[in-house]
Amino acid sequence: MTADPQAARPAPRPSLAAGARPLVAALVADAARLRLAVSRDPSGARIVDAGIAVPGGIEAGRRIAEICMGGLGRVALTPSDRFSPWSTLVSVSAEDPVLACLASQYAGWSLAAGDFFALGSGPGRAVARVEPLFAELGYADAADAVTLVLETAQMPPGAVVAEIAARSGVPAEAVTLILTPTSSLAGTVQIVARTLEVALHKAHALHFPLERIVDGLASAPLPPPAPDFLAAMGRTNDAVLYGGEVHLFVAGPAEAARDLAARLPSSTSRDHGRPFADVFAGYGCDFYKVDAMLFSPARVTVSALEHGVSFTAGGFAPDLVARSFGG
Amino acid sequence: MTADPQAARPAPRPSLAAGARPLVAALVADAARLRLAVSRDPSGARIVDAGIAVPGGIEAGRRIAEICMGGLGRVALTPSDRFSPWSTLVSVSAEDPVLACLASQYAGWSLAAGDFFALGSGPGRAVARVEPLFAELGYADAADAVTLVLETAQMPPGAVVAEIAARSGVPAEAVTLILTPTSSLAGTVQIVARTLEVALHKAHALHFPLERIVDGLASAPLPPPAPDFLAAMGRTNDAVLYGGEVHLFVAGPAEAARDLAARLPSSTSRDHGRPFADVFAGYGCDFYKVDAMLFSPARVTVSALEHGVSFTAGGFAPDLVARSFGG
Amino acid sequence: MTADPQAARPAPRPSLAAGARPLVAALVADAARLRLAVSRDPSGARIVDAGIAVPGGIEAGRRIAEICMGGLGRVALTPSDRFSPWSTLVSVSAEDPVLACLASQYAGWSLAAGDFFALGSGPGRAVARVEPLFAELGYADAADAVTLVLETAQMPPGAVVAEIAARSGVPAEAVTLILTPTSSLAGTVQIVARTLEVALHKAHALHFPLERIVDGLASAPLPPPAPDFLAAMGRTNDAVLYGGEVHLFVAGPAEAARDLAARLPSSTSRDHGRPFADVFAGYGCDFYKVDAMLFSPARVTVSALEHGVSFTAGGFAPDLVARSFGG
Repeated sequence: MTADPQAARPAPRPSLAAGARPLVAALVADAARLRLAVSRDPSGARIVDAGIAVPGGIEAGRRIAEICMGGLGRVALTPSDRFSPWSTLVSVSAEDPVLACLASQYAGWSLAAGDFFALGSGPGRAVARVEPLFAELGYADAADAVTLVLETAQMPPGAVVAEIAARSGVPAEAVTLILTPTSSLAGTVQIVARTLEVALHKAHALHFPLERIVDGLASAPLPPPAPDFLAAMGRTNDAVLYGGEVHLFVAGPAEAARDLAARLPSSTSRDHGRPFADVFAGYGCDFYKVDAMLFSPARVTVSALEHGVSFTAGGFAPDLVARSFGG
Repeated sequence: MTADPQAARPAPRPSLAAGARPLVAALVADAARLRLAVSRDPSGARIVDAGIAVPGGIEAGRRIAEICMGGLGRVALTPSDRFSPWSTLVSVSAEDPVLACLASQYAGWSLAAGDFFALGSGPGRAVARVEPLFAELGYADAADAVTLVLETAQMPPGAVVAEIAARSGVPAEAVTLILTPTSSLAGTVQIVARTLEVALHKAHALHFPLERIVDGLASAPLPPPAPDFLAAMGRTNDAVLYGGEVHLFVAGPAEAARDLAARLPSSTSRDHGRPFADVFAGYGCDFYKVDAMLFSPARVTVSALEHGVSFTAGGFAPDLVARSFGG
Repeated sequence: MTADPQAARPAPRPSLAAGARPLVAALVADAARLRLAVSRDPSGARIVDAGIAVPGGIEAGRRIAEICMGGLGRVALTPSDRFSPWSTLVSVSAEDPVLACLASQYAGWSLAAGDFFALGSGPGRAVARVEPLFAELGYADAADAVTLVLETAQMPPGAVVAEIAARSGVPAEAVTLILTPTSSLAGTVQIVARTLEVALHKAHALHFPLERIVDGLASAPLPPPAPDFLAAMGRTNDAVLYGGEVHLFVAGPAEAARDLAARLPSSTSRDHGRPFADVFAGYGCDFYKVDAMLFSPARVTVSALEHGVSFTAGGFAPDLVARSFGG
């Protein structure tokens, strides 16, 4: 079929927008059973309310988490005795973890207008490419429709929708925004489904070369939602910081894998050891005063594929999980 | 698109029949690989034998359980050390638990003719609406084809099929009956997949307002089937009563959530503490003499969504699970 | 519809090729996101590289394992504390275990030409029927396209492709070969997903009648890949031999079920107790000197369906798993 048919050319990188498209269509088609509300804002953008005026739910959150990974990840709920009586683990795998987590799931796009502020995550980020991260990833997506997930309890104002459309090069009618309040069931699930993403983001902050991260698996316990934003943010962070686990499979030297494992767990942070809500309050609720090294799973295993050796560091803090979830 | 496009109207309630339809079609299409037998009875109704003249199996039971929830629930088999060496948990989640479990999965339709008796469960119940429960649920479904699951080892007589068709307003040819004997593998799975339903049914019996039950997750160990009907009924009940767990997420006052958690576990029943087959025999095999409060999971957590507090009560009885499953 | 419409005729046995077909099409369509390379060899056969020149990954391996079972099995990755810190179990179920595992997944077709040697597994085996096992199974499949999985790091030579095509009665263009090196992530997953198959194969070697094996569930821990072939082969075997569990559901006498349970675990072998790589090296790397009875899961439960009794034998060897995976 080609001049050198033996050649197995590497496949082109997948489109996150294309991966998410059938999942977004199914989410909208199943809105009634998922207890979501779908509407159009004045500019024509499609708004999926996953927990503001409607209940949404755990399964909605699970599906939104998979959308948020551009269709390149799988999120499951599994019974477990690891943090009894909090018996549900949210587990995550990804077909291409760096793309699924950093190019899509990471909440990296700051969207602000007037009083409104939200961090945008999801496959639309790779079309707009507002963040410098995309130059590092060397990845660009093209699509005639974009989807973002916003962790917010407010309807985004017209100026935010207009910015998203303009930066993405699509009309407002081609924008879908999925709104998941931090306190909602769907919001809780889709945040805790970020355990793998949190690990990759910290690996990047530690200057571990992303192209060496070949695969990964992660899990964290599902917290009960809290109606208060700070408490909800505290619990979802504690689920990852004190109950999260990640297993990364990396290329490159064994020493680099050992070093990554040693530096990756949340226990390496000066802020480790207290519920996140307390840490946050202790800094006067100034997010940027929290040690960035805190944001990582509790326990980490890194396997060096080219050497067959693995390194485990950190550990679960079930007492902190219990204090946080039960509080 | 509307006068007030900003308005996110709540979606209409989903059709259980529509949710089940593709799953029923797939079950029939995959009959050979699932080792089911599909036939037509003399009146033209479609009969799916899932364990009478054919072996059926665990995966058939898993899929039938999802059909029984009107396509609004997910059933998974997960390895677990909770009740070693019984290493498989049947876990259940639902997109809309009250509809999936009470309007569909609950075996609430008594079907009798001559010597034949079976309790009908599944999405067809919400079309026929024979039970007073549907007025309380405020839910009605419409469909031109109906599906019921019958826990029976006998072919239903023509009079039963005729009653189902008449009450559903469809011709007999539009009725599908899935037969799962209590002693079969498929029957075992689809019964144990009722852990969440059992909890919701008891919550209803305790007069907890169903509209406050927002979400739920449940699991129970998979027992080995028993060829004797009483032993099989005993084991499947024991799986829930002594090995089942449910986590409910509810709206409303924290005190009501605390009260629900306290009253929900099987340990609140006077009949708790012996294998179900013994309890049943002790009452001369009169089902209606068994304390209705026994039918509930062993361990219960109720999270009050508007207050961020959770309450756990009850506990697993691994010794009773061991006696029941191993006997 | 028939003369005796009441008769529920047993369904014909399913086609493994038909079960695999949509999964193979999806694997090829998703090659980019799964990081596979798809090419044509000089004869026109389709080659799916799952870990030679491309990284592949865990999810690719999971999907290949389901293809290898002819679409009649389900493979899942589940977080577990059974072999901490190796927190992922590969679990397997099958709609029809004997067909899925022995007629398809078992690596029973020896393919050799020149320096090349590989064992072929997957649904294509049941079309070619080269192995005497198929007469015993009484199963034949017909298909105009065949798929095999080869555990190899080399491109198969033209003579091997030609033999597969000729034996299957299809042109080379209708042959799909999925290549999974033992050391790759995809290879690791698809080997460890053979825990149920290993148990059925040993049951067969013990002369347990295959038609009595009605259902089965299995799990084993996911090892980190090893770049060295011997170490990789050692770890994937140790995952099954020292960390694998199977639950079989069988027809026939209770005594036969008890006997099967007693004889099935790997602990019954004279070679049990050392990492597989050591055993293999101890025999001068002569595979056929290793005790065939070693190849079986660590812990076995057999439930006799017609008697309601179950028998558990063997046990996990977490210390050997730790030595093997960590080494």
